[in-house]
Amino acid sequence: MEKLHVVKIGGKVIDNEGSLETFLKSFLKVEGKKVLIHGGGKIATQVGLKLGVPPRMEKGRRITDWDTLEVVTMVYGGLVNRKIVAMLQGMGESSIGLTGADANLIKAKMRPKHPVDFGYVGDIEKASINVEMVQKFLDMDLTLVLPALTHDGAGNLLNTNADTIAATFAIALADKYDVSLNFCFEEDGVLSDYYKKTVVHKLDRPTYKQYEEDGVIFTGMLPKLQNAFQAKESGVKEVKIGHFQNLEDLMKDNKKGTTIT
Amino acid sequence: MEKLHVVKIGGKVIDNEGSLETFLKSFLKVEGKKVLIHGGGKIATQVGLKLGVPPRMEKGRRITDWDTLEVVTMVYGGLVNRKIVAMLQGMGESSIGLTGADANLIKAKMRPKHPVDFGYVGDIEKASINVEMVQKFLDMDLTLVLPALTHDGAGNLLNTNADTIAATFAIALADKYDVSLNFCFEEDGVLSDYYKKTVVHKLDRPTYKQYEEDGVIFTGMLPKLQNAFQAKESGVKEVKIGHFQNLEDLMKDNKKGTTIT
Repeated sequence: MEKLHVVKIGGKVIDNEGSLETFLKSFLKVEGKKVLIHGGGKIATQVGLKLGVPPRMEKGRRITDWDTLEVVTMVYGGLVNRKIVAMLQGMGESSIGLTGADANLIKAKMRPKHPVDFGYVGDIEKASINVEMVQKFLDMDLTLVLPALTHDGAGNLLNTNADTIAATFAIALADKYDVSLNFCFEEDGVLSDYYKKTVVHKLDRPTYKQYEEDGVIFTGMLPKLQNAFQAKESGVKEVKIGHFQNLEDLMKDNKKGTTIT
Repeated sequence: MEKLHVVKIGGKVIDNEGSLETFLKSFLKVEGKKVLIHGGGKIATQVGLKLGVPPRMEKGRRITDWDTLEVVTMVYGGLVNRKIVAMLQGMGESSIGLTGADANLIKAKMRPKHPVDFGYVGDIEKASINVEMVQKFLDMDLTLVLPALTHDGAGNLLNTNADTIAATFAIALADKYDVSLNFCFEEDGVLSDYYKKTVVHKLDRPTYKQYEEDGVIFTGMLPKLQNAFQAKESGVKEVKIGHFQNLEDLMKDNKKGTTIT
């Protein structure tokens, strides 16, 4: 099967124009078919505050009322997504920026309002991904750039966690490609000691469970790891978590980053 | 040749969610291949003011410094474009929202800084349109939704007038399709008397010149008409200007709107 790289970049990579450029240059060196998935939560928080739409969080997740949906549509779907595509084009890589609504790429279900009403938040599963359409775009030699936005098929955009989109996308495409899924962020991998920056090079579920019970892994990492394990256990060939600065090394070198086993 | 409808919607259609829905329902009834082009200037002005980026205009055109470019990228490329695509999907029409950077669809040249420095504003001509790529998307039965954003091919998005994009797009596609170009707005057509709302049903260049000299046509209409005449004289089969509420009638009925002859 042909290789497909699904790469997710988060928070601090996007906030800083220099970091984003460094990442994209490294992303450019990865050969073959590629999908890039991004959020933009911190910029959305800043823009929202200026627009009088302060963030409301519940267990680390953003509550997306109508005004917040407009902010994330502007920031994820507009500012961040359009800028990444223009930058990639400038570097010679033909790319296309699509939300889940475009060509009906990702159809989500609005999350039930109980126990917590998260508002315009969409949940997805493997069948939510329009694999046939994704293949058409990839066969046009376009790199897909996807923000954390899906749609409900009834006219509404929905906010869907970017880690979840990355994992679900990887799982859905695993029937057609040898998928390598990379979560890139500002650390060198999953850390067993946050202050000493000790990277766990291989992580299996029992160890992860142990780390979770012992409180070794910091909170923000837990949903990312849930997604990572789900992907690995659903046919995704390789799942890694590591630093955004040297994506090529992360992909090739087993001593870089954390490999999910 | 196959028919292609290029439709431009402006200002007051987009500002009001009800108007937008009315327009999209009428747009939906038009059969065959379609391209929809939109701006979003008034929303950009409102959002810009809240973000501390007040509009600066020169002869009715927006000066696009870096901060303004970020605002229009958010509003045209994010909020408005993504919302239109989601609404069309909800109505059962598969569509895709692309800036000029996506798949290198429209490559513009940054406008020279003299006599007026308009900032990140891009000028385009027939050769700027990636006709082959446009055809690929149309052949996938996708309706294209394009905001007033192009790119310079060097990593920067550029602000390009939506009327100009519509006309240039129509001209570039006229070699491959029977193109019908429709400029839709909140009036019934070109008005020879703004207060009595007298619609000019057929307009040729000499009459237009006369109207311009006599000051009959209001200022905002002049660049639109320049674009309309250029399109008509460059192979676009039909060019009409009319109300957004009944696009089907505008296209079929010669007594509706203004036909450029």
